[in-house]
Amino acid sequence: MLEIEAKARVSNQEKIKSKLIELGAKFLKKEEQEDIYFNHPARDFAKSDEALRMRKIGKNFYLTYKGPKLDKLTKTREEHEFKFSGFEEAKEILNKLKFREVATIRKQREYYALQNFIIALDEVEGLGSFIEVEKKAEHYTPEEIISFLKKLGVAEGSLERRSYLELVLAKYT
Amino acid sequence: MLEIEAKARVSNQEKIKSKLIELGAKFLKKEEQEDIYFNHPARDFAKSDEALRMRKIGKNFYLTYKGPKLDKLTKTREEHEFKFSGFEEAKEILNKLKFREVATIRKQREYYALQNFIIALDEVEGLGSFIEVEKKAEHYTPEEIISFLKKLGVAEGSLERRSYLELVLAKYT
Repeated sequence: MLEIEAKARVSNQEKIKSKLIELGAKFLKKEEQEDIYFNHPARDFAKSDEALRMRKIGKNFYLTYKGPKLDKLTKTREEHEFKFSGFEEAKEILNKLKFREVATIRKQREYYALQNFIIALDEVEGLGSFIEVEKKAEHYTPEEIISFLKKLGVAEGSLERRSYLELVLAKYT
Repeated sequence: MLEIEAKARVSNQEKIKSKLIELGAKFLKKEEQEDIYFNHPARDFAKSDEALRMRKIGKNFYLTYKGPKLDKLTKTREEHEFKFSGFEEAKEILNKLKFREVATIRKQREYYALQNFIIALDEVEGLGSFIEVEKKAEHYTPEEIISFLKKLGVAEGSLERRSYLELVLAKYT
């Protein structure tokens, strides 16, 4: 399964929200996410364009692997994830296996649903406001997402292929 | 927290069971365990004496890391474990991170409890019958476990420090 996904920087989050509601999008939930990113003991994920992430949402924990991006425009990549309990134990296991903690990213995220899209409106600590649009699909069709973003008033020039992790690292290093 | 643990080969499992009951041990549960062992992408766990294991018990899954053994007699080592859901996704993530599947071990295990000890009676596919005695403790006191095994009629000469994984690999390679 592919996760076809695009992200864009947004100057006016409220305007996007109004547009979403106007188009009939359904508000799903708001949550605070804390993500810890790790680097691999034997290769550099910054070069291989992969990611390993522990995510904390309240008392729910997820471990996610993301493969390299598949095109030049969107953030589409292979993704695998499982839910787990025992955050500190899991972190300790990653430490013992010599995965290195790279950065922690905190954000407020609101989810909306429209047609087959899941839309996330993010306020990222230290980085600002973003929109992410995602669609799970067997086949690769990024054009749909780009044209949906345009409908919301997001120009192709605002697209941001870099992950929050890359943006944070670019800012602080 | 340390897991102080000793294992021994057993010729007559029924005799051990009777002795356990006689001493007042409580039968806890019987279960079938399937363990998949992985090797590290950048070091050889066979040499570093570590282990990474996915365990399946019915619909419950556990990921466990075990550090090197701390003494010459018992199997005491640092251990970290968490419970998770999504067995295939977790296995796929380990594959993507280049952890290599080494072997799968299946066993029937009966758990008993007596004083602070947890006793496991194992019938291991292809390996035979074993007893494992375990105690969680802050401080390292293996003598207690050795003398408890003697009480059950298990001689020190039957002690087996090698893991089931090592025994399987020794048998088939």
